[in-house]
Amino acid sequence: MPFRSQPENAILEKIHRSFRVAPRGRNARASRNSLPLGMGDDAALFSPSPGCQTILTCDWFLQGTHFLRDKHSADAVGWKSLARAVSDIAAMGGTPRCFLLSLALPQDATSAWLDAFLVGLRRAAKRFACPLAGGDTTKRREILINITVIGEVASGRALRRDAANPGDFIYVSGRLGAAQQGLQRLRKRRGAAGRANPRLQKHLYPEPRLALAGWLSTKRLATAAMDLSDGLSTDLPRLCSASGVGAIIDATSLPTVSRATASPSQAMNLALNGGDDYELLFTVPRNKAKKIPANFAGIPMTKIGKITKSRKVLLSGPSGLPKILRPQGWDPFL
Amino acid sequence: MPFRSQPENAILEKIHRSFRVAPRGRNARASRNSLPLGMGDDAALFSPSPGCQTILTCDWFLQGTHFLRDKHSADAVGWKSLARAVSDIAAMGGTPRCFLLSLALPQDATSAWLDAFLVGLRRAAKRFACPLAGGDTTKRREILINITVIGEVASGRALRRDAANPGDFIYVSGRLGAAQQGLQRLRKRRGAAGRANPRLQKHLYPEPRLALAGWLSTKRLATAAMDLSDGLSTDLPRLCSASGVGAIIDATSLPTVSRATASPSQAMNLALNGGDDYELLFTVPRNKAKKIPANFAGIPMTKIGKITKSRKVLLSGPSGLPKILRPQGWDPFL
Repeated sequence: MPFRSQPENAILEKIHRSFRVAPRGRNARASRNSLPLGMGDDAALFSPSPGCQTILTCDWFLQGTHFLRDKHSADAVGWKSLARAVSDIAAMGGTPRCFLLSLALPQDATSAWLDAFLVGLRRAAKRFACPLAGGDTTKRREILINITVIGEVASGRALRRDAANPGDFIYVSGRLGAAQQGLQRLRKRRGAAGRANPRLQKHLYPEPRLALAGWLSTKRLATAAMDLSDGLSTDLPRLCSASGVGAIIDATSLPTVSRATASPSQAMNLALNGGDDYELLFTVPRNKAKKIPANFAGIPMTKIGKITKSRKVLLSGPSGLPKILRPQGWDPFL
Repeated sequence: MPFRSQPENAILEKIHRSFRVAPRGRNARASRNSLPLGMGDDAALFSPSPGCQTILTCDWFLQGTHFLRDKHSADAVGWKSLARAVSDIAAMGGTPRCFLLSLALPQDATSAWLDAFLVGLRRAAKRFACPLAGGDTTKRREILINITVIGEVASGRALRRDAANPGDFIYVSGRLGAAQQGLQRLRKRRGAAGRANPRLQKHLYPEPRLALAGWLSTKRLATAAMDLSDGLSTDLPRLCSASGVGAIIDATSLPTVSRATASPSQAMNLALNGGDDYELLFTVPRNKAKKIPANFAGIPMTKIGKITKSRKVLLSGPSGLPKILRPQGWDPFL
C-alpha cells in the first residue's frame, strides 16, 4: 500500500487508531448506530434519529488566541477543544452525536504533542458519548483546531436564545468567573498545567451542562437558554437582543468565586466579565420557577434577575439606581 | 442594543446580512425547509429528510497553504472554499443542504476583502443550493477558513470509497490537470486574478460534480467513488486501499489538458499528479459500463483503467511493462 508512506496519511492513521474504540456510556449505542460510516471516506454518514432535529455547531480553538502552547497541556487542549463545542449542543438542550476534527499542525507537534492531544480529546469524546466522524488535517506553523459537533434534539424542543419573555426569571448554573480565575492563575505559573491542579480544572477541563440542559428541554421548563462562553455582560445582552427584551440583574445574587480567593470587586468583575465558564444561562416562566431546584446533580442553580419589556440590560446593586450592564466580556476583535 | 457596537458582532452582522436572502434554484425549497433555525443562536437546527442519511464533511482553506492573498481574489477564495467542501458531498453521491463557516480574519481583511469574499461565497451557496447555517469568527494575523458542509443521500445509496471490486472499470470526469495548469499560470502573473480569465477558471472556480454523482447514485451505476482533490496518483491508491484492491491505469487513455498548451510529458504529469481538479473518480461494474455515456451534461466521461485483485496500483504506457504508480500528488506534510 504505497500511500502508507505519505506523512499526511501517517497523521490520519494516528487519529484513526486513537478513535477506533467506540465510546462507552449512556448514549454510546445511539452514537454507534447513528454513524454507519466514519473516518476514511470523502465524508461521514450520519443516520438521524426519527422525530429529532439535527444540531450543528463549530468552534475555533487556535494556538495563541484560545490556548498557549507553553501554558496549556496538549491533553487539556484536546479536552477543551471538544468540550466547548459540545457546550453549544448543551445550550440547545440537545445530545451530542459525533464530531469532525480539523487539525493543522507544525511538524514538531506531530508526535508527542499529537499523542497527548488525542488522549485528552478521546477522554472528552467518551465522556460526552460523541465519537469522531471525520475531519481534515494539514500542516501549519501554529496549531489550528476547528471542531464541528453534530447533535440532536426532539423536534420543537430546542432551547433557543430568542424566546425569553418579560417576567421570566433568569438563572445561571455553577459559579461564574471560576474559569477566568483559573486562567489568571495559569498565567502566573511557570510551564504547562494539566489535570493535576484542581484550581485550574474549570479553565482547563470545562464540563458542558448536557444533563441540566436536556432536563430543562424535556420538562419544558426553560423559555430560552444559551451557554456562557464570553462572559455574562456580553452573553446576556445577546440573549436579550435575540428575544427582543431587556433584563435586570441583581448583582448581590450572582454566584461568584469564593471570597476566600478574591476580593469582592474582583469576584464581581470575574462573574460579570470572565469568559470560558460554559455554564448555562436560562430563563424560566415565573409559574415554573418553583420546579428549579437549588442544585441539579451537585451544580448550584441561581436566580440572578428577570427579563423586562424595556430593552435595556441593567445591573442593580445593594445601593443606588440600576446601571446599564456594558459588555466587557471576551471579544477577539478588541 | 449595546452589543451592536462590538466588533465581533459587526462582522457577524455583515455575514448575516449577506446571506439573509435564501438561495434560489432546484433544491432551494428543500434547503429552506430543512433549516428552521440558522445563524444567531448557539447552534443551527437542521431537519433531516425522511429516508436520508446525513453527509458530514469539513475542509481547511488557509492563506499561504491553500490560497495566496496577492494571487487569489477574495471572490475566488469565497467560491472555492465552499466548492471544494461541496465536492466531498458530490463524492458521496449526495446533495448539499447547508454549511457552517469558520472564519479568522486580520483587521485589514474585515472590510473590502470580507465583502468580496462574501460575494463569491454567496454565489457558490446559491449555485449549490447550500445556505449558510452558522459558524464562528475570530481575529488572526492571517486569513483562516474552515467550512463544514451538511448534505443528504438516500439511505444506503452513498457512493463510498471502499466498495470497488476487481474487474470494475475505472472512470474519471472532465480533463485532469487543468486546475494545476491554472495555478501554474496564476503564479506567473502579476497581481490577483478573479472571474475574468477563462484559462484560470478551473483553478479558481471549480464545479463540484453534483449532478453526475447524484445520477450515478440514483441509477446504482457506480460501485465506488471519490473526488480528485490531491491528484490521481495520490487519490486512486486511497480508493484502492479502502476497497482492498489494486488498479491498472492506461496512461494513453488519460483525459489530459490540451496538447496545444502543454508538452506530452507535462500534460501526463499534470493529469497524474495535479491537484484541485474536483473531478469524480468512480468505478463501474463491467456489465453496466455501456450505460456510462461519452459525456454527461457536457462533461467528458473517460474509462482510464480497471480494478484488479492484486493490491498494486499500476500505470501502463504505450510500451514496456506497467510501472507502480507512485503518489506524487499534493501532501501538506511534504
